[in-house]
Amino acid sequence: MSEFGFIHDLRALADPDHALDFTDDAATLPAADVICTDTLVEGLHFIGRESPADLAHKMLAVNVSDVLAMNARPSHALLNLCLPERCDAPWRAGFVAGMREACAHFGVTLLGGDTTGSTGPLVLTATVLGQLEGRSLWTRSAAQPGERICVAAPVGQGALGLADALAGRDDTTNAHHYRRPMPRTDLLGRPGVGGCADISDGLIADLSHICRSSEVQGVVDLASIPLANTAGDWTEQLCGGDEYQLIFTLAPNAPLPPACTVIGEIVARPEPKAAPVRLLGPEAIVTAALSRSGYQHF
Amino acid sequence: MSEFGFIHDLRALADPDHALDFTDDAATLPAADVICTDTLVEGLHFIGRESPADLAHKMLAVNVSDVLAMNARPSHALLNLCLPERCDAPWRAGFVAGMREACAHFGVTLLGGDTTGSTGPLVLTATVLGQLEGRSLWTRSAAQPGERICVAAPVGQGALGLADALAGRDDTTNAHHYRRPMPRTDLLGRPGVGGCADISDGLIADLSHICRSSEVQGVVDLASIPLANTAGDWTEQLCGGDEYQLIFTLAPNAPLPPACTVIGEIVARPEPKAAPVRLLGPEAIVTAALSRSGYQHF
Repeated sequence: MSEFGFIHDLRALADPDHALDFTDDAATLPAADVICTDTLVEGLHFIGRESPADLAHKMLAVNVSDVLAMNARPSHALLNLCLPERCDAPWRAGFVAGMREACAHFGVTLLGGDTTGSTGPLVLTATVLGQLEGRSLWTRSAAQPGERICVAAPVGQGALGLADALAGRDDTTNAHHYRRPMPRTDLLGRPGVGGCADISDGLIADLSHICRSSEVQGVVDLASIPLANTAGDWTEQLCGGDEYQLIFTLAPNAPLPPACTVIGEIVARPEPKAAPVRLLGPEAIVTAALSRSGYQHF
Repeated sequence: MSEFGFIHDLRALADPDHALDFTDDAATLPAADVICTDTLVEGLHFIGRESPADLAHKMLAVNVSDVLAMNARPSHALLNLCLPERCDAPWRAGFVAGMREACAHFGVTLLGGDTTGSTGPLVLTATVLGQLEGRSLWTRSAAQPGERICVAAPVGQGALGLADALAGRDDTTNAHHYRRPMPRTDLLGRPGVGGCADISDGLIADLSHICRSSEVQGVVDLASIPLANTAGDWTEQLCGGDEYQLIFTLAPNAPLPPACTVIGEIVARPEPKAAPVRLLGPEAIVTAALSRSGYQHF
């Protein structure tokens, strides 16, 4: 498959009204409400021996997750692909197949992008647009004292999945989650959501982002967290990233959305410099989890 | 300068109404009409010893050029930066300074982005939005027989500038153009423009894109092209990329915009499989220029 064939095949996933058939310098911008972009670098954000279809899914899913965290429905994507030479014709065919499946699953069409070579690692960037469709925007800064803290899925699947994948245990549920994160799309528009983020840096780090932005404190009961493996390493699961599921605060009288779990509550900051998150539970785990910080990005 | 300091400094360039202070999963999307994205990879699209301020300028300018080629005014950008370890605090400070200057020059504010490490080359992606402000969209596919073919600047500055930079001749006009391309912003809304593109792959390649999209043939008189150096290598200048100035077709009775040059005309394709571009001039140069192809991208 030549470069031309690769782009031709991706063109089948294009928005016919806005992508201009990928032949112009830019695409026309469809109406949308939010925009986000995330880059995945081989050796940092993925191992490198994932299948091209898995990587196509993941690069779209991590951005879809960011859009869903704002209460927006993903609609369009641009793809920037830096492909080293080993990304040959079969690799590219697998990538197109995976992207076709991921676009169909998340309801996304392509607007364009840029494909280049790479003298080093595989680098995958997606930029995704999303639609509020009349819903109000969710942000990190809207958490209020009295709200419950909720998670939308078991915590730790990303961290355990990475460990499994690194050890060659590719058939576990967690390894599958690591390769193909599946952000929940059924939480859009749920009433009573206050602050919201997706867990990409780790539960503690992302809850800290919410609490810092909202100038509140989150008090979490470790025993109430639905860990992917309660017999496994708690710190890894509390601090590992790659979840791509929501953590959000919920007004006192709002119904808990299905398959979500309350793990704590938001309180007023006891003082301006108070820690954004307080953990209740075994001291060794609390200390280890708090001392390990997440990534910073913008 | 820590990662935090870097992002904090970039935040000063943010759109206060839409960037959400870079603290959320996504930005809110401002009203805009076009969107484009281009990735620059160290060792492929730049040498690697350019100053961080030059790289900041260039990553923005190449995308600004794409937006201007659609008759849109650049307004907002997202930046994805994959930074190897050598991009230390002074490098980052230089990058922020260069980005501040480039944003001010092109009238662009930041919406957000993603900063990661890199296990290999420096990889710089910008995604730029643009505003039509009531003007009609320019595309590659609108060239018509009878129109003149025009260029907005001397041709070959990018190719000669790259050669100068590779040879360490950093003080030449062309080397400066290579490091800091300056797409013209004064051509927005000029009447009578038909097909339009920016010259990023090379004059012959980009004119071919226009003519293929428009299903016409471009006939170019080599002697009329304003070469950056008529005593230099013609093939390099006709086929080299990195110009970031417009090539466009112009209706017969439309006034020629200032500092633009007519280099040929658009004719009906003599037959469906005819070459998109025909060059008139010395046979050796015609043959060399046509046999060398540009890059393909999408």
